[in-house]
Amino acid sequence: MKRVVIAGMGFGGLSAAKSLAGSGLEVVMVDRHNYHLFQPLLYQVATAGLEQESIAYPIRALARRWRGAHFRLGEVTGVDFNGKRLMLEDGEIPYDYLILAAGSRTNFFGQADIERHAFDLKRLDQAENLRNHVLLAFERASREPDRERRKALLTFVIVGGGPTGVEFAGALRELAVHVLSRDYPEVRPEETRIILMEASSSLLSVMPRRLQGYALERLRSMGVEVMLETRVSGADGEHVYLNGGEVIPTHTLFWSAGVAAVELAGKLGLAQAGAGRIVVAPDLSIEGHPEVFTIGDMACREQDGAPLPMLAPVASQQGQYVARAIRAREQGAKLPPFRYRDKGTMATIGRNAAVATTHGVSFSGYPAWLVWLLLHLYYLIGFRNRLLVLMNWAYYYWFHERQVRLITASARRSP
Amino acid sequence: MKRVVIAGMGFGGLSAAKSLAGSGLEVVMVDRHNYHLFQPLLYQVATAGLEQESIAYPIRALARRWRGAHFRLGEVTGVDFNGKRLMLEDGEIPYDYLILAAGSRTNFFGQADIERHAFDLKRLDQAENLRNHVLLAFERASREPDRERRKALLTFVIVGGGPTGVEFAGALRELAVHVLSRDYPEVRPEETRIILMEASSSLLSVMPRRLQGYALERLRSMGVEVMLETRVSGADGEHVYLNGGEVIPTHTLFWSAGVAAVELAGKLGLAQAGAGRIVVAPDLSIEGHPEVFTIGDMACREQDGAPLPMLAPVASQQGQYVARAIRAREQGAKLPPFRYRDKGTMATIGRNAAVATTHGVSFSGYPAWLVWLLLHLYYLIGFRNRLLVLMNWAYYYWFHERQVRLITASARRSP
Repeated sequence: MKRVVIAGMGFGGLSAAKSLAGSGLEVVMVDRHNYHLFQPLLYQVATAGLEQESIAYPIRALARRWRGAHFRLGEVTGVDFNGKRLMLEDGEIPYDYLILAAGSRTNFFGQADIERHAFDLKRLDQAENLRNHVLLAFERASREPDRERRKALLTFVIVGGGPTGVEFAGALRELAVHVLSRDYPEVRPEETRIILMEASSSLLSVMPRRLQGYALERLRSMGVEVMLETRVSGADGEHVYLNGGEVIPTHTLFWSAGVAAVELAGKLGLAQAGAGRIVVAPDLSIEGHPEVFTIGDMACREQDGAPLPMLAPVASQQGQYVARAIRAREQGAKLPPFRYRDKGTMATIGRNAAVATTHGVSFSGYPAWLVWLLLHLYYLIGFRNRLLVLMNWAYYYWFHERQVRLITASARRSP
Repeated sequence: MKRVVIAGMGFGGLSAAKSLAGSGLEVVMVDRHNYHLFQPLLYQVATAGLEQESIAYPIRALARRWRGAHFRLGEVTGVDFNGKRLMLEDGEIPYDYLILAAGSRTNFFGQADIERHAFDLKRLDQAENLRNHVLLAFERASREPDRERRKALLTFVIVGGGPTGVEFAGALRELAVHVLSRDYPEVRPEETRIILMEASSSLLSVMPRRLQGYALERLRSMGVEVMLETRVSGADGEHVYLNGGEVIPTHTLFWSAGVAAVELAGKLGLAQAGAGRIVVAPDLSIEGHPEVFTIGDMACREQDGAPLPMLAPVASQQGQYVARAIRAREQGAKLPPFRYRDKGTMATIGRNAAVATTHGVSFSGYPAWLVWLLLHLYYLIGFRNRLLVLMNWAYYYWFHERQVRLITASARRSP
């Protein structure tokens, strides 16, 4: 039986594995975690809205259902393309086909001081750390007599006006206003500052102008301070330094201003495009190695003159395509080149407030929020996770309460 | 307004705070965690049956409802009895009344090598670590070609035949047989060994003989190897050494063979009884300091010739008593001495199997299991936690599935 090895079980790897299951090929799913993580909701774990368990799903539970598929926990260190072996920290796996789907990491653009002091959201433990850190900042502020230090503890700076920055800013503001204001009677609501910074002149740059305006206005009406055309030039853990010379005293800097392909992409000796992404052929295979595919955030494929965005739907569609391409090739056939069908994008700002655009139609407010909610429930894996998330959302919606406000360990900085 | 400071928000501190709320006294609840932990279910977090969030409840959520009560996060370092101040790592709190309720820690009886290599269950992060460690042992075993090393990875040694050891052994066996056997088709079910060791000649020493026999027989029929009259003399992380000279190769040693009062008890300069517990007067106050009370696992009070056991019901009843004693004293009255009313004890062994004894009546099997389940749901704090736990139990009961089998971080040894 021929073996397909998939490195990385994010949205791309997952959809490839699912589409290959039962095809008569052996499928080996490799990941350094034993679960698939639903990254779009990580920010809700960081803002005490969801348990971490509800957005993670054990890969072995999928392997049970998918015929021919099994799981190998391991950290990928490289690929022996000529010997057709995926190299792991503690072993190797020979392959007939290889799908590289290891995703992306946060891009700090080489600013080491920011990387050292900023939080970012890519992994589950980072979300837990950030939640611990935010709650601990309130704990410390509640007993801090010095006015300036108290202000710095209660100032939260978010860099990057894309969907993650917007969603995190909105959720954090709601947490502070509706939940923590009642938990910390020692803190006056107006003492908490949430600052969202964006280098360009508008939030949500990929969205239509009307929705950009809606998001900006909505965030501001919620009390988020939005600073456009503002860049961060440095950080030291107690201050954030802006390009214009301004200094903001703060203990919390959240960075969502860029993504790049995982480091592995640079170790493979392959041609790379912007953000370290691997250049792929029209069928998503690698130059000179038709049996190796790269998909998702790791891959760079241009379409209509621009590289495809690093988004979950792109990864999912590429995973399905590659699975079909492999099955076709096994039958001596060949697929037409990959084409991404853009079904739209969306971002939620707060309760009853979101923006969405699909097939040229834009909508905002309650309808967009409801669609956002239903689609996220739909795409979550597993009945139980859906139920848990729905329960948490309903609870928050009706009681304005977020239950997961536990400080589960001493807050650690992101590595 | 006079101030009551409560150090420790376990079962004792919680019941004292609840009983004091609204009494016209200021109540300051101090804990090093920002949540109350429902310790009796920690072993279910460690065996992938429950999310950690479902057995923890934010103390500030309680403070909102309890008039006059507020919360201070902090590590207690000592007490200035003459100056009437509770000393914290980062501050101090003056008090009129002080209730010491900081609980217990695991007692390794000075065996440093065991302490270094063994897991124990007192804190939430320990339960998560243990779950990660167990799942990681299966991951490693599933790709370990060497037969002996594989066997060592799949051998789990539990020391202590009290309720915690029995419950953990039963839950771990069920996890291995029903869940992990399907997750790891590479591992044959008979390769997994769960060994429960007890130094005395019977399990559950406080229970009637009939129930001890039932528990032993039931565990053995489930496939747990129970070794009575067996002591552990040493450990090195890859082996457990027994008193008789036998050596068991294993990567997992779980210790539940003893408890002692927290270290704080020894730093206060007060008279201590066995296991470091503080000797208290009939009204649970401390010699020479009628305004300071000690309750729960930290306190040693004899009744009918024997020290009261270190159990949640003792702590809860003492918390209520002390609250009433303080309220009475404020009105110039005095309560009769504290008396513990034993409502019974219970332990669950597995699905549909438990033992319970109350008011001289013993029962086992399904009725005991159902009572265990309902009482634990009843005593859990918060509607949402109850719902979550019930959901998880129902899911496991009907589908034989435990969903929280995530390896959330690299497994760390207990400190």
